[in-house]
Amino acid sequence: MSKGIKIVTIGGGSSYTPELVEGFIKHYHELPLRELWLVDIEEGKEKLEIVGNLAKRMIAKAGLDIEVHLTLDRREALKDADFVTTQLRVGLLDARAKDERIPLKHGVLGQETNGPGGLFKGLRTIPVILDIVNDIEELCPNAWLINFTNPAGMVTEAVLRYSNHKKIVGLCNVPIGMEMGIAKLLDVDHSRISIDFAGLNHMVYGLDVYLDGVSVKEKVIEKLSDPENSSFVKNIEGQEWEPGFLKALNALTCPYHLYYYKKEQTLQKELKNFEEGTTRAEVVKKLETELFELYKDENLAVKPPQLEERGGAYYSDAAVRLISSIYNDKRDIQPVNTINNGAIPFIPAESAVEVSCVITKEGPRPVVNGEIPVAAQGLVSQIKSFERVAAEAAVTGSYDKALLALTINPLVPSDKMAKVILDEMLEAHKDYLPKFFTRVEA
Amino acid sequence: MSKGIKIVTIGGGSSYTPELVEGFIKHYHELPLRELWLVDIEEGKEKLEIVGNLAKRMIAKAGLDIEVHLTLDRREALKDADFVTTQLRVGLLDARAKDERIPLKHGVLGQETNGPGGLFKGLRTIPVILDIVNDIEELCPNAWLINFTNPAGMVTEAVLRYSNHKKIVGLCNVPIGMEMGIAKLLDVDHSRISIDFAGLNHMVYGLDVYLDGVSVKEKVIEKLSDPENSSFVKNIEGQEWEPGFLKALNALTCPYHLYYYKKEQTLQKELKNFEEGTTRAEVVKKLETELFELYKDENLAVKPPQLEERGGAYYSDAAVRLISSIYNDKRDIQPVNTINNGAIPFIPAESAVEVSCVITKEGPRPVVNGEIPVAAQGLVSQIKSFERVAAEAAVTGSYDKALLALTINPLVPSDKMAKVILDEMLEAHKDYLPKFFTRVEA
Amino acid sequence: MSKGIKIVTIGGGSSYTPELVEGFIKHYHELPLRELWLVDIEEGKEKLEIVGNLAKRMIAKAGLDIEVHLTLDRREALKDADFVTTQLRVGLLDARAKDERIPLKHGVLGQETNGPGGLFKGLRTIPVILDIVNDIEELCPNAWLINFTNPAGMVTEAVLRYSNHKKIVGLCNVPIGMEMGIAKLLDVDHSRISIDFAGLNHMVYGLDVYLDGVSVKEKVIEKLSDPENSSFVKNIEGQEWEPGFLKALNALTCPYHLYYYKKEQTLQKELKNFEEGTTRAEVVKKLETELFELYKDENLAVKPPQLEERGGAYYSDAAVRLISSIYNDKRDIQPVNTINNGAIPFIPAESAVEVSCVITKEGPRPVVNGEIPVAAQGLVSQIKSFERVAAEAAVTGSYDKALLALTINPLVPSDKMAKVILDEMLEAHKDYLPKFFTRVEA
Amino acid sequence: MSKGIKIVTIGGGSSYTPELVEGFIKHYHELPLRELWLVDIEEGKEKLEIVGNLAKRMIAKAGLDIEVHLTLDRREALKDADFVTTQLRVGLLDARAKDERIPLKHGVLGQETNGPGGLFKGLRTIPVILDIVNDIEELCPNAWLINFTNPAGMVTEAVLRYSNHKKIVGLCNVPIGMEMGIAKLLDVDHSRISIDFAGLNHMVYGLDVYLDGVSVKEKVIEKLSDPENSSFVKNIEGQEWEPGFLKALNALTCPYHLYYYKKEQTLQKELKNFEEGTTRAEVVKKLETELFELYKDENLAVKPPQLEERGGAYYSDAAVRLISSIYNDKRDIQPVNTINNGAIPFIPAESAVEVSCVITKEGPRPVVNGEIPVAAQGLVSQIKSFERVAAEAAVTGSYDKALLALTINPLVPSDKMAKVILDEMLEAHKDYLPKFFTRVEA
Repeated sequence: MSKGIKIVTIGGGSSYTPELVEGFIKHYHELPLRELWLVDIEEGKEKLEIVGNLAKRMIAKAGLDIEVHLTLDRREALKDADFVTTQLRVGLLDARAKDERIPLKHGVLGQETNGPGGLFKGLRTIPVILDIVNDIEELCPNAWLINFTNPAGMVTEAVLRYSNHKKIVGLCNVPIGMEMGIAKLLDVDHSRISIDFAGLNHMVYGLDVYLDGVSVKEKVIEKLSDPENSSFVKNIEGQEWEPGFLKALNALTCPYHLYYYKKEQTLQKELKNFEEGTTRAEVVKKLETELFELYKDENLAVKPPQLEERGGAYYSDAAVRLISSIYNDKRDIQPVNTINNGAIPFIPAESAVEVSCVITKEGPRPVVNGEIPVAAQGLVSQIKSFERVAAEAAVTGSYDKALLALTINPLVPSDKMAKVILDEMLEAHKDYLPKFFTRVEA
Repeated sequence: MSKGIKIVTIGGGSSYTPELVEGFIKHYHELPLRELWLVDIEEGKEKLEIVGNLAKRMIAKAGLDIEVHLTLDRREALKDADFVTTQLRVGLLDARAKDERIPLKHGVLGQETNGPGGLFKGLRTIPVILDIVNDIEELCPNAWLINFTNPAGMVTEAVLRYSNHKKIVGLCNVPIGMEMGIAKLLDVDHSRISIDFAGLNHMVYGLDVYLDGVSVKEKVIEKLSDPENSSFVKNIEGQEWEPGFLKALNALTCPYHLYYYKKEQTLQKELKNFEEGTTRAEVVKKLETELFELYKDENLAVKPPQLEERGGAYYSDAAVRLISSIYNDKRDIQPVNTINNGAIPFIPAESAVEVSCVITKEGPRPVVNGEIPVAAQGLVSQIKSFERVAAEAAVTGSYDKALLALTINPLVPSDKMAKVILDEMLEAHKDYLPKFFTRVEA
Repeated sequence: MSKGIKIVTIGGGSSYTPELVEGFIKHYHELPLRELWLVDIEEGKEKLEIVGNLAKRMIAKAGLDIEVHLTLDRREALKDADFVTTQLRVGLLDARAKDERIPLKHGVLGQETNGPGGLFKGLRTIPVILDIVNDIEELCPNAWLINFTNPAGMVTEAVLRYSNHKKIVGLCNVPIGMEMGIAKLLDVDHSRISIDFAGLNHMVYGLDVYLDGVSVKEKVIEKLSDPENSSFVKNIEGQEWEPGFLKALNALTCPYHLYYYKKEQTLQKELKNFEEGTTRAEVVKKLETELFELYKDENLAVKPPQLEERGGAYYSDAAVRLISSIYNDKRDIQPVNTINNGAIPFIPAESAVEVSCVITKEGPRPVVNGEIPVAAQGLVSQIKSFERVAAEAAVTGSYDKALLALTINPLVPSDKMAKVILDEMLEAHKDYLPKFFTRVEA
Repeated sequence: MSKGIKIVTIGGGSSYTPELVEGFIKHYHELPLRELWLVDIEEGKEKLEIVGNLAKRMIAKAGLDIEVHLTLDRREALKDADFVTTQLRVGLLDARAKDERIPLKHGVLGQETNGPGGLFKGLRTIPVILDIVNDIEELCPNAWLINFTNPAGMVTEAVLRYSNHKKIVGLCNVPIGMEMGIAKLLDVDHSRISIDFAGLNHMVYGLDVYLDGVSVKEKVIEKLSDPENSSFVKNIEGQEWEPGFLKALNALTCPYHLYYYKKEQTLQKELKNFEEGTTRAEVVKKLETELFELYKDENLAVKPPQLEERGGAYYSDAAVRLISSIYNDKRDIQPVNTINNGAIPFIPAESAVEVSCVITKEGPRPVVNGEIPVAAQGLVSQIKSFERVAAEAAVTGSYDKALLALTINPLVPSDKMAKVILDEMLEAHKDYLPKFFTRVEA
């Protein structure tokens, strides 16, 4: 790392890239980036050009000496990289639309990281990530893989269990969003709030919350449970629980808990979107088209404010904060997906968990923050069972394992419906599931 | 125990009692019963008389010298007992009808031991059982409590955590039924089949199955998964899984898994019963009325065959087998509910589990049969979380804990619906929930 | 196993063989032995002939139709075996003498299974056993390996961790001896006593002890702690503890605990033997010479009573009882060395432990008997650490790992002395430690 | 804490106090001390006056507005304290001399925190600390107890298990000393070195060591194992291991490992001191007399350099660093003794461990740094067994438990010698062991 850092962003043509580039510019003083390689695949070439050129203009405007490389040759890019970030989407937004619409057609939640959609995003993504990891092991074995690609928990689990490259961190903006929400609730600056996180990706709990280091959990739960306070609460996604629920749970929830503790309402909302053609993929597709129109403008040399609506708030912050803490051995505490190693005793030591970690040059180290509440342990275990069976299905291409994963998923109403959806989605995503189809065709 | 055994049956007026009495008669040679005390409460007096007199006629006919005592004075009965069996139903079948019908009215599964019905049966039953346990500690501290009362898992959990009487075994006929089913499937005598059980009450898995000691799991799963074999399978309740599911799961399921792996179908079936007025409580009520008519017949001195339709098949066998193995230190293996002590590593050591145990004079000792499959661990954990929060709600009378228990239950669609059902059921069962109402009234 | 059982005894020329043959004869009705193969190596050919011919005479006298084969061709013998027993001694009694005398020369305990002697017996034995296991996997993969060879804990650990053949049981006569001792102490028949065993080989504790199924632990500890009772106690090896010690420990000890809880006295005793030339190897050597003289007598057709002095009391019983329980799926409880699988929570799940097990056709299943006392957990952990490092040294031939194993052993006074003894013993046992020397010579 | 911090130092008359006061002066900018209460008992009154007056002169010289209170009234002092530090010595140095000399007289290691001396220091100290904790719970329940009193592991264990005040941190200068040693070995500034600590007090291992965040473990072990390097190594106490030992162990040791991995040499060294009348207590007594002579000098207003020879190097640094990180919620990483909570999986969750922790306003949180090496697990377990039995003996005053604790201690040669030493030491320390003697006298 003598003369600055080399970072490779796989899925570089993503609409998120300007967010990341803005982060690199802001933190250049502590993260001396020398080369930024944006990598994409043939189908993403046009987007890569558009977003890559915007990135170049942004860096030029900032007056920084960072080389930006745009390439379709992943292996060339990876050579001697210091960090690799992955933000890819196998099958693009069309695949996401199928992940959402096929289950919903059958009255089952269709969502990117939960239920059948989550399984299929995992089945498509895990083999691709494992391929990248193979290249990393060969071409830049000391590089840290920072994975943003969802389902981040399942992907981290798969890399930990099915590869030898242990330098992987899964990153999500849900925890930082929870801290932001609490800051808003208490009307204080975000920097004064910290949360003890423990659980899994998109299934993380806040075991305690601090204002300037002093626990304010009781007060926060009081506020969140107060119907009078609803105007505040409405601004915090996923916190409208029945009074008494949070008090009894004795922990903070994340927005994705809605899918489990409010199965019915979230499903009804999604079904409405389904009928109106406004599921998330459809909304995002429209947003992305608009964004890329903006990105094409050769006069644009900053991240356009419209990007914030895209949903990746704080990703740039989270990503750059993580990379910088690794690079600088900052030993500050950040919530990331990493190997459990006993931090959550009822989850296998070798599984991925999302917990508050000390971030060191040698990677994240979980902080032991006490026990996940009894009432939450069951759901965390269940999602981990699902993730493990799903990861096994992804690497083996086993139809039966995929059926099992769907059937045990709490959002799937039965083995029968699991089979119906499985068959339809396998067919729909056939092109991106070689493990499942080569054997059949052979 | 010098001159024979004293057994006390609480809820002695139950229609099941003749089943139990038949068992005691059959096994008198190894279980020298001296006194059988049938205890009931004021409301059950008439039934107690009817069933108690039948018991006396049965014993007389068998020519055995067993005293049968009928009493409403529980404390008198318990004095120096060797074994206490509990088969009580707080609120009788009317309460069960409410457990079934209130949730179903809201489109949620209504069932005796699962979902909201299971929670409320627990809330009503646990304080009564803990009262009995207090009496046992005072009046017959060396007695073994054999609990048949559902929800047996939750009840065992509560006694283990909230009393000092550790001599409790929870007993269920589900495991023995699974062995009978496999015997039928393989067309062999039941005695040649054995299963390694592990899990929780009504959530137990068969980790392996043996014919004459040789594992036949693969063959059994093959047969259960073969659609051609459906005529056999139809006779085994709860085994009609999608092909491939069991193979991937790599374990045998119990009938109660239907409520989780076939949520939708079982719910639809129950909803149909609900509309037709044929939920289980209603069926059983009719059966019981008929049974008690039969029991009144002074010429009847055997268990009438109609009792078998009542649903308690093998209970007598299981109960007498268990009591005899404790009494005689047989050290044979039986599946019971007992303290975990590490047998299932991901469940707390002090929690109740349903596992194959060696039955000794000093109680059951779990046998370590290997790991519960990854895919099943999550659901087992989730039900244990539910049981623990439910037990805590039962002993504290905490509204919030009850709300939490319902919300985390996988059969309840949301916290909102949890509250609706909770409020309605609390009101409906008010008379049997003093812990929840005294505080409010105070 | 259609036409009777084929058993292969490796180390068949051992003086113990008549013991085993007597057992097979006694239990022929339940264990229909068809072929007994006694296998030995070139150096043991003469002994094999002598003892093998005695075995033939014994069987002939019993009028049984069992073929006895004597061979030096292990692979021929193993073909399609049902059970393989190993009772070998790499380097014969000369090696044992070195195991005992070299440490003692330096004032350190020299003993067959503990301290430096135990390590070196392990280093010589483990590679040979792993070779045999390889042959078993190829030639009789369904055979159960019943290992009597010491150090049985270390050997079982090595097979579980470094081979794929999981059908191994380690057997020791220490637990049965403890039951016999208690029976004598209470003056009752041995069959009425049972003990809950938990720990490691030669480091096993009795967590509870029963007379006819009723716990008599308190009474037994009282008797063992009563100085008045010393005449009884003296007959029970290794039970002369300071009054109060056992009460506080709240468990029964085994004779090998003397080496740890009475380090000084046992060492002094051994040092005396060392000086007088009466260490165990020397005593045994003399006994064996006499035994083989007896065995040669062509008129002898029974196990000579002098064999009992050899020290293998109850081995025959224990071995035949184990083999019969596996063969007949008896599901009785016997203490054996097997995979932990969570039975002792603070020992790794995949490690070998010595615990009370249910013996089934598919092998032993540990019974969960509650927690090993706090005061004993540390020593059990320490011996397991030693066994694991020793096993790793044996399979890798790593000098440093062997040095580490010796240094952490509680009977070795320092790393310095560890090195002195290690170097001298490596040289002395050079011929039997190819893993340690081939690399050096290469 | 509105107007600055109130700190109470129990054992304030200790010769260490100037060290602590110097630390408070240096860090006043971040730790605004308002009141420092030095508390001692009647026997320590004179020392308290001398050292208290020196403290006042030091603070006056520094021009700081800190009130210094000297008192024998502990309860008055504790009122509303923010931090309480304990550095007391029950029985003073005379008791330490007995702890050292009585075992040595019998040829057994006599040392302040290990073996019989460690047990007796625990037996005398634990009841006193629990008394203080009771006062804290009543008078300043929010105060953090920072315990320096040895045996710090046993004391922390006792407070965690036998009191309700969970705000305790045990502090030791051994870890910081290890970092200093490595810094010297690598010839770099101490601030650039960090170690992942895990284990128990005085039995802590360095799982990895970093220079500027990059692991240098391999290099450090290489250097420590290189005989050529001996001149460096000699300056690092307790690192003269046989070549290969550290490599195989794959962790760094602490100086107290000498007592276990070099039992013989350390014992011989102590025996020599014993004969020459230069055991540690005797040396320290002489040092202390000299120190108090210096302290009396009314012109002295700084910590005299001679204090450094006393042995408490870095204590001041460690203590003030810890208090400041709690007070300021610094969330930096420091090695302290705290509740395990799963950080070391094979040690009970509720036991005390010494591990690298994030220091927050709500106390220390262990950082999960991976597994303690197999070879070290056993010794760690054994010392924890000893500490737990010792703590139980201390709170119950049970002779048998004390005998058990000594017998299982790896430095005690037998139960017989345990009894001899126990009886002699109980008599010698009678005045400080009311729990052991009131019952006998009653």
